[in-house]
Amino acid sequence: MIDIQSQRIEDGLPIDKVGIKNLKYPIIVKDKYSVSQNSVATINLYVSLPREFRGTHMSRFLEVIQEVGLKKINRRHIRSLLLRIKDVLDAKAAHIEIHFPYFINRKAPVSGAEGLMEYDCALFGIHDDEDRFRLTLEVGANVMTLCPCSKSLSPESGAHNQRSRVNVRIQSGPLIWIEDIVDIIESCASSPIYTLLKRVDEKYVMEHAYRNPRFVEDMVRLVAEELKCTDGIHWFSVESEHFESIHNHNAYAFLECGDRDLEDQ
Amino acid sequence: MIDIQSQRIEDGLPIDKVGIKNLKYPIIVKDKYSVSQNSVATINLYVSLPREFRGTHMSRFLEVIQEVGLKKINRRHIRSLLLRIKDVLDAKAAHIEIHFPYFINRKAPVSGAEGLMEYDCALFGIHDDEDRFRLTLEVGANVMTLCPCSKSLSPESGAHNQRSRVNVRIQSGPLIWIEDIVDIIESCASSPIYTLLKRVDEKYVMEHAYRNPRFVEDMVRLVAEELKCTDGIHWFSVESEHFESIHNHNAYAFLECGDRDLEDQ
Amino acid sequence: MIDIQSQRIEDGLPIDKVGIKNLKYPIIVKDKYSVSQNSVATINLYVSLPREFRGTHMSRFLEVIQEVGLKKINRRHIRSLLLRIKDVLDAKAAHIEIHFPYFINRKAPVSGAEGLMEYDCALFGIHDDEDRFRLTLEVGANVMTLCPCSKSLSPESGAHNQRSRVNVRIQSGPLIWIEDIVDIIESCASSPIYTLLKRVDEKYVMEHAYRNPRFVEDMVRLVAEELKCTDGIHWFSVESEHFESIHNHNAYAFLECGDRDLEDQ
Amino acid sequence: MIDIQSQRIEDGLPIDKVGIKNLKYPIIVKDKYSVSQNSVATINLYVSLPREFRGTHMSRFLEVIQEVGLKKINRRHIRSLLLRIKDVLDAKAAHIEIHFPYFINRKAPVSGAEGLMEYDCALFGIHDDEDRFRLTLEVGANVMTLCPCSKSLSPESGAHNQRSRVNVRIQSGPLIWIEDIVDIIESCASSPIYTLLKRVDEKYVMEHAYRNPRFVEDMVRLVAEELKCTDGIHWFSVESEHFESIHNHNAYAFLECGDRDLEDQ
Repeated sequence: MIDIQSQRIEDGLPIDKVGIKNLKYPIIVKDKYSVSQNSVATINLYVSLPREFRGTHMSRFLEVIQEVGLKKINRRHIRSLLLRIKDVLDAKAAHIEIHFPYFINRKAPVSGAEGLMEYDCALFGIHDDEDRFRLTLEVGANVMTLCPCSKSLSPESGAHNQRSRVNVRIQSGPLIWIEDIVDIIESCASSPIYTLLKRVDEKYVMEHAYRNPRFVEDMVRLVAEELKCTDGIHWFSVESEHFESIHNHNAYAFLECGDRDLEDQ
Repeated sequence: MIDIQSQRIEDGLPIDKVGIKNLKYPIIVKDKYSVSQNSVATINLYVSLPREFRGTHMSRFLEVIQEVGLKKINRRHIRSLLLRIKDVLDAKAAHIEIHFPYFINRKAPVSGAEGLMEYDCALFGIHDDEDRFRLTLEVGANVMTLCPCSKSLSPESGAHNQRSRVNVRIQSGPLIWIEDIVDIIESCASSPIYTLLKRVDEKYVMEHAYRNPRFVEDMVRLVAEELKCTDGIHWFSVESEHFESIHNHNAYAFLECGDRDLEDQ
Repeated sequence: MIDIQSQRIEDGLPIDKVGIKNLKYPIIVKDKYSVSQNSVATINLYVSLPREFRGTHMSRFLEVIQEVGLKKINRRHIRSLLLRIKDVLDAKAAHIEIHFPYFINRKAPVSGAEGLMEYDCALFGIHDDEDRFRLTLEVGANVMTLCPCSKSLSPESGAHNQRSRVNVRIQSGPLIWIEDIVDIIESCASSPIYTLLKRVDEKYVMEHAYRNPRFVEDMVRLVAEELKCTDGIHWFSVESEHFESIHNHNAYAFLECGDRDLEDQ
Repeated sequence: MIDIQSQRIEDGLPIDKVGIKNLKYPIIVKDKYSVSQNSVATINLYVSLPREFRGTHMSRFLEVIQEVGLKKINRRHIRSLLLRIKDVLDAKAAHIEIHFPYFINRKAPVSGAEGLMEYDCALFGIHDDEDRFRLTLEVGANVMTLCPCSKSLSPESGAHNQRSRVNVRIQSGPLIWIEDIVDIIESCASSPIYTLLKRVDEKYVMEHAYRNPRFVEDMVRLVAEELKCTDGIHWFSVESEHFESIHNHNAYAFLECGDRDLEDQ
């Protein structure tokens, strides 16, 4: 059989990323307390392709995943996987994106009733053509926000509030746990949200939120200030999107801070 | 060229629906005030297929759409299109589903500032094997709801409120306008929501919502009671989904009332 | 604290379904070979509400899930959960919908190389007001289909083929395994699809598909005929959607067969 | 009423983007032949916020849209809108993102039968803090691709082919029409795809695709080479995603070329 992918071509353009996209795969992640957590990931895995080759070998991406497995998702494991991909595909750079739901057990603020909260996380890894490795962690958490302007306008009727989504991306030297980013996001909101709330909790949550109103601008700034004070983070971005209860569209803010290690992430 | 689709087969099962799905097409709808509104629809168009034929002729669905056009979406036009489909494809029954965004100009409650609100609408048409025609209209509107329980718990801190989605489906004798269904949905909510609100409006909306708290159960019942009193509606369903500001999951209610004309819609 | 939900109301309409929607939760499912599989589910859980009560108690849905857990998803477990929900909420009927990705290890047809394939599954349970329990299983599998018409038109250029999605829903007396439904769907397609294929496999798959062309009508009929011959299935539906490589829209077919036990599923 | 948004704060972080997201709005775009086309857009509109202000004024984004309108979407109009936003909100930089479906009438290659094809387009405009304006156009088109490797493996059984999605983004001096980008994308594919094909066309399309097999790498390189030869384009990116008929995951490639004018797009 002819290996068409390996054909030499002339005057081709180099390709930044080529590989597989939207692969669903079961994974295991270790949480902050060393407990293993099963999840289901959506995975993209790419390499760079030099100008002189016609194509990459798609099946080898799957062979490497099958061989290396995704049973211990952490910094070391992702680096090994990217190195193996570079080796097997004879590539200068390799990229991986792993999106997965992550669960943390949360206690309601008064009753202490427990419930699992879901957070949308992602890991973006790159091993570049100068053999540098960089990992970016993304954590998405839903929170409650209450509008400061509305509070000042209608003191006897409360204020409009809503579910909001906050996404944080960080690049750090040492490992930062998902749990720590979630704690930062939730502590900056008008209130965290919960899976299970009894009425005493619901009362507490509402009163707490009323005392802590947050614009979309407040949300990104407060989270950013916490991230700036967290040791080891040298770059981060924060975005917040409020699904406002009084509008059909959303309020949105984004800010970025620090130096990204590698450009193309 | 052999016409494989027309091959006779033996012992085949009759197929309830076969045709094209997820076709994007520009349409024109006339609003309540006879103004034409351009929109972009997502269209599914099916026929039934008797047991003795191997296949239908997919290209003819498109030929009929191309010939009849979708520039005047109304009851009469949809019936003609289904009759034409039945004729061209020699089918016993024909089904169409047309999903489209629809815009209504709304004035803010105090300032009168205007803004376009978007509603997700759909028309489901069937012309069945006994030559009966039935049209179902779906209207989806986002509204604001404020929790009665939360209001009673935290009288000095307001109450949790959120964006909610209400979907109504109706079957009626005479035509019911989208605008009329939207008016019913919005009048039953804690408050309508708006594209453009100035601060005097925001104050009004919040105070209005606080005086009109709504559980998800209240929403579907109030809308249902209005629909029951509307002349000409002989079947309807109402669903309401509240994207609760204190939870990661949603509150949901559904009720159905009256007699559906034709079973398989 | 006043229990507003328990307020008696007059002239209310009964509500078919009220509860929680879009809850993400980790689950464990046992596969055909008694191996436990971790997955992440999206869950809806509803009860019926009689006309005389204003509201249900949303937090109790979560308490029951927290108490009963979702670590052994099977027929018996779902029935217990629904009975518990009916009991705790004093409801006449209870409904659950559990959507989850499910993985099966598949061997490539020639090389035997292994790879995990993902299938989108769902369980729909109802415990109704006459104490009848009914479970519906849904299995969604992607397959390859090759067009018989195209094959006859261009004998020297192959035929257009594409990824297609087949969804099966069944109601059965005894348990039918997800693996068995997947086997039926894949055996009826032009070819199963795979996560990992080497070149010898890719050659085999293409030649197999070319010998087994399938219209969208063929797909639903072939699957239906297999389901009809499967002991214990008394109702099923099959739909197939082909993301045709020559069009921007999809080809679609649906058929339903047998008697549904309970109406409102 | 107190204007909380205008409150001065100390030590705040500057915010890169704050504004409204996911606003649905009807728009009018002029096509290459000066015919006006109605569409429905999804719009994001942001400004930068300096460190000393607590918040922006969300309602003014809508006032500007209401005042300026979106009835003539083109380069000049978008610049005016951004300038007006900067002025009204006293902002240093403004960003707009307009996503919309766009239709082009296409003739089948042999029969000449006409049908409307839908393309997903977007315009990204920025007016930055040095008063520079930059517009990026995105065009997404679905095409047919046929695998060169598969063709070589199974000469008598054709080759696997599938629907693929190609997205191009360009920055150019003079205006480049959507139609021209679509022509480039479609001419580089194994074959364009169509809304309406008769059997003579289907035969032609299949034979054309068979003679023009394309890897995902071929697709992005061929499109890139055409874009490089197009006068006035100084930066572009191309991505191609093949929904492969033999796999559950997709093949993907991305390349970028030239100098971006402004960094933060």
